[in-house]
Amino acid sequence: MLKKYNYSQLSSQDIADLVDRNTDPSSAIQDTVLHIIDEVRRHGDRALVDYAHQFDKVKLDKLYLDADDIDELAFTINREQQRALEIAFQNIHKFHSYQLKRERVVETMPGVKCWREPRPIEKVGLYIPGGSAVLPSTLLMLGVPARIAGCKEIVVCSPPQASGKINGFVAYCLKLLNIKRIYLVGGAQAVAAMAFGTESIPKVDKIFGPGNQFVTKAKSMLQGMTNVSIDMPAGPSEVLVLADETANPAYIAADLLAQAEHGVDSQAVLVATSDTLIDEVNKQLDEQLAVLPRKEMAQKALENSYAILVSDLTEGMKFSNAYAPEHLIIESDQWKSMSNQILNAGSVFLGHLTPESAGDYASGTNHTLPTSGYARSYSGVSVDSFVKKITFQHISEEGLLQIGSTVEILAELEGLHAHKNAVSIRKG
Amino acid sequence: MLKKYNYSQLSSQDIADLVDRNTDPSSAIQDTVLHIIDEVRRHGDRALVDYAHQFDKVKLDKLYLDADDIDELAFTINREQQRALEIAFQNIHKFHSYQLKRERVVETMPGVKCWREPRPIEKVGLYIPGGSAVLPSTLLMLGVPARIAGCKEIVVCSPPQASGKINGFVAYCLKLLNIKRIYLVGGAQAVAAMAFGTESIPKVDKIFGPGNQFVTKAKSMLQGMTNVSIDMPAGPSEVLVLADETANPAYIAADLLAQAEHGVDSQAVLVATSDTLIDEVNKQLDEQLAVLPRKEMAQKALENSYAILVSDLTEGMKFSNAYAPEHLIIESDQWKSMSNQILNAGSVFLGHLTPESAGDYASGTNHTLPTSGYARSYSGVSVDSFVKKITFQHISEEGLLQIGSTVEILAELEGLHAHKNAVSIRKG
Repeated sequence: MLKKYNYSQLSSQDIADLVDRNTDPSSAIQDTVLHIIDEVRRHGDRALVDYAHQFDKVKLDKLYLDADDIDELAFTINREQQRALEIAFQNIHKFHSYQLKRERVVETMPGVKCWREPRPIEKVGLYIPGGSAVLPSTLLMLGVPARIAGCKEIVVCSPPQASGKINGFVAYCLKLLNIKRIYLVGGAQAVAAMAFGTESIPKVDKIFGPGNQFVTKAKSMLQGMTNVSIDMPAGPSEVLVLADETANPAYIAADLLAQAEHGVDSQAVLVATSDTLIDEVNKQLDEQLAVLPRKEMAQKALENSYAILVSDLTEGMKFSNAYAPEHLIIESDQWKSMSNQILNAGSVFLGHLTPESAGDYASGTNHTLPTSGYARSYSGVSVDSFVKKITFQHISEEGLLQIGSTVEILAELEGLHAHKNAVSIRKG
Repeated sequence: MLKKYNYSQLSSQDIADLVDRNTDPSSAIQDTVLHIIDEVRRHGDRALVDYAHQFDKVKLDKLYLDADDIDELAFTINREQQRALEIAFQNIHKFHSYQLKRERVVETMPGVKCWREPRPIEKVGLYIPGGSAVLPSTLLMLGVPARIAGCKEIVVCSPPQASGKINGFVAYCLKLLNIKRIYLVGGAQAVAAMAFGTESIPKVDKIFGPGNQFVTKAKSMLQGMTNVSIDMPAGPSEVLVLADETANPAYIAADLLAQAEHGVDSQAVLVATSDTLIDEVNKQLDEQLAVLPRKEMAQKALENSYAILVSDLTEGMKFSNAYAPEHLIIESDQWKSMSNQILNAGSVFLGHLTPESAGDYASGTNHTLPTSGYARSYSGVSVDSFVKKITFQHISEEGLLQIGSTVEILAELEGLHAHKNAVSIRKG
């Protein structure tokens, strides 16, 4: 049962409280993570082997698997599963391959040419979580845009299974991506290893990927401590479903539960124009929850969730924009017109037949998305995340005459005479 | 005189040391900034008025100037100066306006449509420094892309002049940008005010702009403490000039000095294929430095700078890519072929007649760029920095049949049954 609020009875403070999530900073986590970071920086591989023993309960002889191991593991999964991963790979590749486009040269004044060119980030680190669920889909979501961008070195870390290896699904994805090594390192220690480099693991320029609160904290802290950058601050997953009376309550309940089963800290929000619909969704939630393997987890997540009754979809979208959901599903015949009102969201699923899980796996869009309200200012991962756009300019003799005096006047007014002189000396 | 190194005699550790810069974390600054942040969070406007008194030596009755004040100040500058600012505005606008493009809808499978749409970040904060030099050009570099992106609320902070106002150049830029208010707040306190919001100053979603080490530290810290995001970690400015015997030593010296006059912590690096050229540049540096108003500052920056003799331009570019300069100037007839070898740089100036100062002010490219090696993973500010790209997807009945079983298989293998059910329930 979702708690129910009536939008018209909420004060702006109530709304601010409902929208606020995951902002509680825990210094207990911070201290633990700082200790792990310190150990990895000082002891390198040895610390990683120790943590694998301590956290993952495995004794590792070496910290990685190479092509032969990966090949062997990849063929432990059946042909139907391989085919599903291939289709996901193809769709993700197709969608992301349109994201890198050559841009035009702009002649801002005669003889003054300016343009941008993308260049891959040379060394990237991908973190693939492996705790309560192993997520081969995340490897595709990060590996495909990294490949399209042309990154030279793709370092992949994922915690070892009890076997001391990785599972076959992850192995098959590595093969699809033509990545020939995977490091058996998880948690904050994996992030630290990629930020500093160890004997086995190369230092990278940017670290990508979701993870638990230790991983997330390590990414944020190392971003400040070193010159490594990160994709985004990621937190627990969330969905907001905006629905009217044209929606099917069974579909809505299924979508809310797909979110809820991620973890106890997931949040599933229903914003609906109909009180009856909310009641029907609650009924469906009970029924569908009963048969779910991860029902305890989903049940806890639902306690952390709520429904809001709004007078119309526009009012609902107002709340959604304030919430800035990672995933927004619009289950209404009016999805087209409503989508124009979206200001803040990570990824949007339109209409009655577009479940979030399609985008999680296979439709082609990326599932690494901003959470906790970061959709107000962050985009999800894309090929853009794996490149820099460098600006270039070339000025001809004509261009220098055109622009010269403007630069001289502006340098003068800012009191920067050497800036002025760099033009004057060329004008001769 | 630049210190001189011979690339062939440098070990890889020597190169790593030369490339390393500004990585010294000072906890003295951190404590000061943390105190300021805390004061602003607790006391809001009152803390800002106190800091203006303490740091800027002015007593402020109110914390902002409105349209009437701005109008009045804008017309204290002469027509030639207004015209120069207008040309800069136009060129920056022209270049940046090509950065937002409608993207195509990709049908990854029949009936599965995916696309991205940009949405402006609603509330942005622009910090315009006003210490050793007042930089109206920075206001244009941040304000123009914010306007093109369509940001709803543009909050501008800049420290008050001794008059308790702002200078006429900044005022004129506000008019060009149609921004009707400016907050008279500088330093770390301005960044804190925009991150938390105060009685006068709105809380923003993302903070942009360069600044001194206190401003930079505040941006980094607040990014971790609140849900505000920042454009990039910015540090002292730097240039790398790559030159061969076709270069004019007087031009090179002028470019190095334009960098050096920014501040004592600026760095100017010359990478040249000719020992004679380095000597000639050093001679020119002496001559040009002598007549420079900011010569003490530039002199100190040069002590922090160096020249490297390389055997050819390709070797030089190898060093440049390791250094990842904020500004890269290629003063060689071979600029075209060399530009393809660039992997890491913020903004690139090609050929003998393209001084960095053209890009600092007026050519059209942005001058807010990644420093301290961050060009390995960050781009400079562009319209992209002021928008999110939201992914959208719509699946038809046909699409659901096409993609359904793939999603079901992948959800099953990740053990996420509610994910699977969100598809199955729709397939009926």
